[in-house]
Amino acid sequence: MHRTRVKVSEGVLDANETIARDNRDDFERHGVTVINLMSAPGAGKTSLLERALEDLGDVRVGVLEGDVQGTLDADRLASLHLPVTQINTDPGFGGECHLDANMVRSALPEVPLDEVDLLVIENVGNLVCPAEFSVGEDSRVMVCSVAEGEDKPLKYPLMFRTCSLVLVNKIDLLPHLDYDLDLFLRNLDAVHPDVERMLVSARTGEGTEAWRKWLLRAAG
Amino acid sequence: MHRTRVKVSEGVLDANETIARDNRDDFERHGVTVINLMSAPGAGKTSLLERALEDLGDVRVGVLEGDVQGTLDADRLASLHLPVTQINTDPGFGGECHLDANMVRSALPEVPLDEVDLLVIENVGNLVCPAEFSVGEDSRVMVCSVAEGEDKPLKYPLMFRTCSLVLVNKIDLLPHLDYDLDLFLRNLDAVHPDVERMLVSARTGEGTEAWRKWLLRAAG
Repeated sequence: MHRTRVKVSEGVLDANETIARDNRDDFERHGVTVINLMSAPGAGKTSLLERALEDLGDVRVGVLEGDVQGTLDADRLASLHLPVTQINTDPGFGGECHLDANMVRSALPEVPLDEVDLLVIENVGNLVCPAEFSVGEDSRVMVCSVAEGEDKPLKYPLMFRTCSLVLVNKIDLLPHLDYDLDLFLRNLDAVHPDVERMLVSARTGEGTEAWRKWLLRAAG
Repeated sequence: MHRTRVKVSEGVLDANETIARDNRDDFERHGVTVINLMSAPGAGKTSLLERALEDLGDVRVGVLEGDVQGTLDADRLASLHLPVTQINTDPGFGGECHLDANMVRSALPEVPLDEVDLLVIENVGNLVCPAEFSVGEDSRVMVCSVAEGEDKPLKYPLMFRTCSLVLVNKIDLLPHLDYDLDLFLRNLDAVHPDVERMLVSARTGEGTEAWRKWLLRAAG
């Protein structure tokens, strides 16, 4: 029984890789850099995007919003006057917990690839499956809030291992939490040694200038 | 393509329901009340269990711990001298993002059902798929941290709609967040009108006595 399930899963992942490569070809042909932004629910992906995308100079940005249901985040980002495309995953059964390459592919006709240099794909809030499904991105960025505790890299290692940048968000809460930042960073290094990390607060803006510059470099 | 995916998913869910009923029969035969405890990563499930299970009087409690990898939470709870059984979901591909009825069934031989009155199943931290898979529980409890923002009921409605109790955790952080508790409660009522809710802080202990009494009543 269990072996069968693993085979099915690998088949799904193989098919996903094929479609992810097609997406990647399209992105490259249009000269678009693609970031897959991931986190647990409520870690602050949208707020950190609002901070960074307010001013990316000449870089033209588009956003692909993944949510189980609704357009709350897309509505927030639309006020930045960017092209925002919503993917809702709930037409599946109770709702898919991640974006896969085919969902992104289905949405691409709605994304003006000729008019953007940088496409940010905001994934469904979840620390497990989004890490398993490439969507054709150039790099993965994850947000981890200090309110989530220090143990998350050890409990969700694939997510932390496959990203290029970890945004440690909500650091304005540090004085009010029993949170050992050094322990978190040791746990992070245990699963992904020396991965780039930034301490940020979407609420106060602390550290978000480095994140904005990271996106500028990525798009360049 | 999409229709095919839905059919596959429904087949998986039908099979899950069959096994969940078998689990339920076993639980009933042994007179065990079963709680499925769910939340986003880092919302405080384990900390709230530590608070409540410290003293449940004559009620004998067991815990089934679901994690992608590791035994961090099981180790914490074992210090309460309860029977704790770990399920790791990572033998799947990158790791399953939820417990299903079959995973729980596979672990049942390790759970001393004759020696417990209440079994708490701590699910994998995720707001999507755990809500889709019954494991044979009597009721579902979810934890939602105020650090996650007010919009979670609208973005993950199935989870909020199928639980009997919502523990709104980390209320000690309220003075330090831009969080509108009334808005959260309105969003909660929009997807699950009048669902029982408790405002708690695992850190300070505020409100956790009501949660302990809820578990006592559930086990009675």
